[in-house]
Amino acid sequence: MPLQDSYELPAAADMHVHLRNAPGPIAELVTPTIRKAGVDTVFVMPNLAPKPVVSVAEALEYKAHLQALDPSVTYLMSLYLHSSITPDEIRAAKTAGIAGVKAYPRGATTNSQWGVVSFDPFHDVLKAMEEEGIVLNLHGEVPSNPTEGVTVMNAESRFLPTLRNLVEKYPRLKIVLEHCTTADAVETVRSFGENVVGTITAHHLSLLVDDWSANVNNYCKPSAKSPEDRRALLNAAVHSNGKFFLGTDSAPHDISAKKGKGNTAAGVFTQPYALGYVLTALEEAIARGDLASEKEVTEAALSGFFSTYGRAFYAIPQSIKKIRLTRGGQVVADSLKSDGAEIVPFRAGETTWGVEWLS
Amino acid sequence: MPLQDSYELPAAADMHVHLRNAPGPIAELVTPTIRKAGVDTVFVMPNLAPKPVVSVAEALEYKAHLQALDPSVTYLMSLYLHSSITPDEIRAAKTAGIAGVKAYPRGATTNSQWGVVSFDPFHDVLKAMEEEGIVLNLHGEVPSNPTEGVTVMNAESRFLPTLRNLVEKYPRLKIVLEHCTTADAVETVRSFGENVVGTITAHHLSLLVDDWSANVNNYCKPSAKSPEDRRALLNAAVHSNGKFFLGTDSAPHDISAKKGKGNTAAGVFTQPYALGYVLTALEEAIARGDLASEKEVTEAALSGFFSTYGRAFYAIPQSIKKIRLTRGGQVVADSLKSDGAEIVPFRAGETTWGVEWLS
Repeated sequence: MPLQDSYELPAAADMHVHLRNAPGPIAELVTPTIRKAGVDTVFVMPNLAPKPVVSVAEALEYKAHLQALDPSVTYLMSLYLHSSITPDEIRAAKTAGIAGVKAYPRGATTNSQWGVVSFDPFHDVLKAMEEEGIVLNLHGEVPSNPTEGVTVMNAESRFLPTLRNLVEKYPRLKIVLEHCTTADAVETVRSFGENVVGTITAHHLSLLVDDWSANVNNYCKPSAKSPEDRRALLNAAVHSNGKFFLGTDSAPHDISAKKGKGNTAAGVFTQPYALGYVLTALEEAIARGDLASEKEVTEAALSGFFSTYGRAFYAIPQSIKKIRLTRGGQVVADSLKSDGAEIVPFRAGETTWGVEWLS
Repeated sequence: MPLQDSYELPAAADMHVHLRNAPGPIAELVTPTIRKAGVDTVFVMPNLAPKPVVSVAEALEYKAHLQALDPSVTYLMSLYLHSSITPDEIRAAKTAGIAGVKAYPRGATTNSQWGVVSFDPFHDVLKAMEEEGIVLNLHGEVPSNPTEGVTVMNAESRFLPTLRNLVEKYPRLKIVLEHCTTADAVETVRSFGENVVGTITAHHLSLLVDDWSANVNNYCKPSAKSPEDRRALLNAAVHSNGKFFLGTDSAPHDISAKKGKGNTAAGVFTQPYALGYVLTALEEAIARGDLASEKEVTEAALSGFFSTYGRAFYAIPQSIKKIRLTRGGQVVADSLKSDGAEIVPFRAGETTWGVEWLS
């Protein structure tokens, strides 16, 4: 049995998005597509280049530029964990409504060159975050290192001891393990209390290593892994009980960074179609047997994964807006294009679920 | 200690090359670069499209076209294992000097759509090959299959039971496990008698999964894997004792198949610089500690891996030509270009060892 033909759900919250520099051609192309996906709230990543967002002032300035692009979206802002951040800045962040601080292990992904080598020097900042209820958002990979046998395939599993140490040392700190890609990560997140959760992207519910090996638009960090890992993510999404929620890690790159000269930029662009991709992935999982039955995909599970669990974790109001998702309701564009940028979305040219705003 | 500054070695044999359709723009660009690498003999793959080489007549016609492109190279020809091949054709192949029959598991790699689903229907052909001393060349991967947990990362290890069955069933059949990429494969090949050997490419002595994840020119099948696997290949190359020899799997694709619309073609192009790449990889392995010392890289080991072991296995005469390899002797071109094709070589723009012909 397939899923229902349509679902009426609360407006979604996408708790991990890359909107890039604003003003800027990519932000101008991407930000207006947030609502198209059925999303009214986004948690915005701070890894801008050439300079990440490391102060409250910068975050608020960035937020104002995003609001100018679409004032109907709620932007939860974040700082980039960096040596310049002080406990006072964390307290100021709390007052200013900044929602989290993102930690990038140095060298692990896009614009992580200013990132963390060890968490030890950040002790006072992490204590302040724990006290203030500011979330620590983790890019959960160690940098690849041939001598230690670390590759893109085991970089997340190798990070999990660091997560365990952080949870032990800061037991009340709210932590999100972002874009979980492995059964190991799911199991580890489940083993902690309710202050530790994970986000799951739309694309990792579909992709395997094979899918990105031959398609640059499917390549991202952390990379998609094995069928067993994908199965664990699918089951975590529908049996979340608040432990896992949507964070697409939608990562727009101009086509020249994917198909041009030089290395391939890491990132899958899912912003305008995020919820549709998730439902398509769940249907495919049922057909393959990765989910036992369509009965696992309840409206409560979808509402939770898309909307209510993430808002509850960040302690923001639930949305009173409603959306309707309908099977086969739209075809993914071949690309999004403006004078300044061209971005190829995930599953370009395929049919996915459509989105209507009901209120 | 680094390697010597130069080596004088017998001319090399590259026992796994893709030259593509001849006449044709890629063959015309690539075939004249064989000798540039210090190679005078190549084993030519039969997976042409739209039609693979499945008869002696086709193989000889293909050979004649290649000879027209460079008559100074010895071309060992192969057939594509296919239902149309009979035991009589195998006997005719022997008479005509065809060296091997390549088996592609259906769906595992480039132009494998006409390939093998099971070896059982080929029993009489394999018996004839065993009797005639025609080599079975194996692309040792099972096709990816999410239900069975098979991805590009374990497709070779999952193939090894098939290799074991073939060795048991045809104990005198000469078999090459082509382009070994895993410690598992190296160990399995070592466990059999001298009629079972493995080839190793130049690029798999350098690459890890990370290297192809972000660089389409490093993407191939079987894909490069972990640091442990690479270490096993490096050690197999220098401690071969005849069990492993060079087969570059040099696989030219026009840049449009790598960087254009659509999926990325699998294949790394190494033809013109193959021996240089191997020496560069060995030097890097010594620096990393993957090889214990430069003393492991003896002239005998290099002569064997590059030239004498492969010729002995195929029972062809040893070369009386000599080459000299010199550190830092050349810079890899950014691309090879003609009116009809443009091919980006491995390590484009880097310095590698140069080659001179001494006789």
